[in-house]
Amino acid sequence: MSTESKSHYQRIVLASRPRGQVVPDNFRIETADVPELAEGQLLIRNHYLSLDPYMRGRMSEAKSYAASQPLDETMIGGTVGEVVASRHPKYAQGDFVAAMGGWSEMAVSDGSGLRKLDTAAIPLSAYLGAVGMPGMTAWYGLNRILRLEPGQTVCVSAASGAVGCAVGQLAKLRGCRAIGIAGGQEKCDYVVRELGFDACIDYKAGNLKEDLKAAAPDGIDGIFENVGGEVFDAALARTNAFARVALCGMIAGYSGEEIPLRNVRVLLTNRISLTGFIVTEHLDCWPEGLAELGKLVATGQLKYRETVAQGLAAAPEAFIGLLQGRNFGKQLVKLV
Amino acid sequence: MSTESKSHYQRIVLASRPRGQVVPDNFRIETADVPELAEGQLLIRNHYLSLDPYMRGRMSEAKSYAASQPLDETMIGGTVGEVVASRHPKYAQGDFVAAMGGWSEMAVSDGSGLRKLDTAAIPLSAYLGAVGMPGMTAWYGLNRILRLEPGQTVCVSAASGAVGCAVGQLAKLRGCRAIGIAGGQEKCDYVVRELGFDACIDYKAGNLKEDLKAAAPDGIDGIFENVGGEVFDAALARTNAFARVALCGMIAGYSGEEIPLRNVRVLLTNRISLTGFIVTEHLDCWPEGLAELGKLVATGQLKYRETVAQGLAAAPEAFIGLLQGRNFGKQLVKLV
Repeated sequence: MSTESKSHYQRIVLASRPRGQVVPDNFRIETADVPELAEGQLLIRNHYLSLDPYMRGRMSEAKSYAASQPLDETMIGGTVGEVVASRHPKYAQGDFVAAMGGWSEMAVSDGSGLRKLDTAAIPLSAYLGAVGMPGMTAWYGLNRILRLEPGQTVCVSAASGAVGCAVGQLAKLRGCRAIGIAGGQEKCDYVVRELGFDACIDYKAGNLKEDLKAAAPDGIDGIFENVGGEVFDAALARTNAFARVALCGMIAGYSGEEIPLRNVRVLLTNRISLTGFIVTEHLDCWPEGLAELGKLVATGQLKYRETVAQGLAAAPEAFIGLLQGRNFGKQLVKLV
Repeated sequence: MSTESKSHYQRIVLASRPRGQVVPDNFRIETADVPELAEGQLLIRNHYLSLDPYMRGRMSEAKSYAASQPLDETMIGGTVGEVVASRHPKYAQGDFVAAMGGWSEMAVSDGSGLRKLDTAAIPLSAYLGAVGMPGMTAWYGLNRILRLEPGQTVCVSAASGAVGCAVGQLAKLRGCRAIGIAGGQEKCDYVVRELGFDACIDYKAGNLKEDLKAAAPDGIDGIFENVGGEVFDAALARTNAFARVALCGMIAGYSGEEIPLRNVRVLLTNRISLTGFIVTEHLDCWPEGLAELGKLVATGQLKYRETVAQGLAAAPEAFIGLLQGRNFGKQLVKLV
């Protein structure tokens, strides 16, 4: 059966807001009719859905930098897919596009916010990772906030994740020393042996402070923080004077618990500059960054790993796993 | 007896490092001989000694931005005084100078780091406060880190202190809304009625969060943080997107206790930029800043209050009082 002839598709909506941990019952799968396209619209069959920690924030009513995900509406999410029908002058059937198609097998778009993708040298799914929002997050934080000199040391948490892996590899390409922090020996081995970080510390090994001291004997000049909590405290304790912090995520607190920062004084004594950022607020940098990232992926200089869940119905469990660090690399859901 | 003929003077040395709270026994008063001046040296009779929170950091062995105060040596400190003898070509008897003369009635200098003072329009003691390091701290943090627009709101803790009072008044002169936080109704009344802040919150009243909400109905765009801990957390909770933080001091933790920051997530969700700074590392700004501050003091546009302890022997108790917030405005020790 060709997609074009399908009259129904499935999507996942937010059924209830989580109290603490996200549970499968917070989501509900629904069947919807494929709509008729109006003039100027196109229909996308989503091939991959991106699962990202920011979605946890959207699920809460709590004030955040973005509007809450409305209840009973399709969960927000980045997608890559194929145009299967078009009444839009700039897009034709067969085009591949990146979109905010949501947790859904299909999406209707008026073309706004779409990005046409060249899949000749870059795999489609990479546009949700290394050549998409996670890659740009790494690129922006490293180039616009940390601004390290060759020879300086960067420390990145969640180092095997979609953002962290790019941070360390880009830092290495710039002549920096890259230290990762990840959960488990397998992830750490990958970060060092396959991605080429100088060291990676398993925070689950219970020796974070001492391990970090050994891995960064000259101290840390830049922290790219994805986790928060104990991991962030430990990195701060090893900073050099005038170190910079790109605060990108605090996945340690995504379930709503309070994660205090204990090592506050060092922000003053080391005259640290810390900047919280959201990469989608810096779209002016995307053309330059994506061009570089695409070239690096196409030439094999920027590696990444994906964890791919199969089918839309697997998305909730995959998302819960992401929040718990069960994924390895970029978490995707393959929809076709 | 004229000073020139005195052969002895008194000074206070660090006798022991504090364990937790500073106690009088951490200091020892000593009598020293007035030395013969070598060629290129001058002798200063210190009129005022400045007591400042940074001294607490120096008393510890803990790693800080500056070297520890050595045991059995004269306590570090800024002073203003009169040249009573000179074999230095640039300084003559009768000149008034600012120096790092320490907790001491007299100081010998080779001229390095000295600043000649004009006491015609500006009181001598003001060069340790509004027209000295505290004033420059306010000036730098406000102009170089917070960089607020007219109409934006700044919140400053320790608002009646030497730094805080200048932050709010300078902010008002730039058309900003200035909110202070201070301990006790008397200080708060002074901050609003005499210094012209728009509001001042008594953190001891136990209603910090709600009071801050009422005082900053449009949120906070800049935090000038002198205290840390609960006060800092409360201000962060009221920040607007892209707020800036000038982290100047954390007097709440000066006795060595750990003061965690609870409201960490807001640094990310509000995309906050935080910068820890030490004003003595930005000496290039001092000529511009001091010129403005001096003019404002001379014309009565920048007000300040002083708490003056009498005689060198009173310095330890006055310093302990400063750490506990017992002073009101700039804490000085009058030595002559």
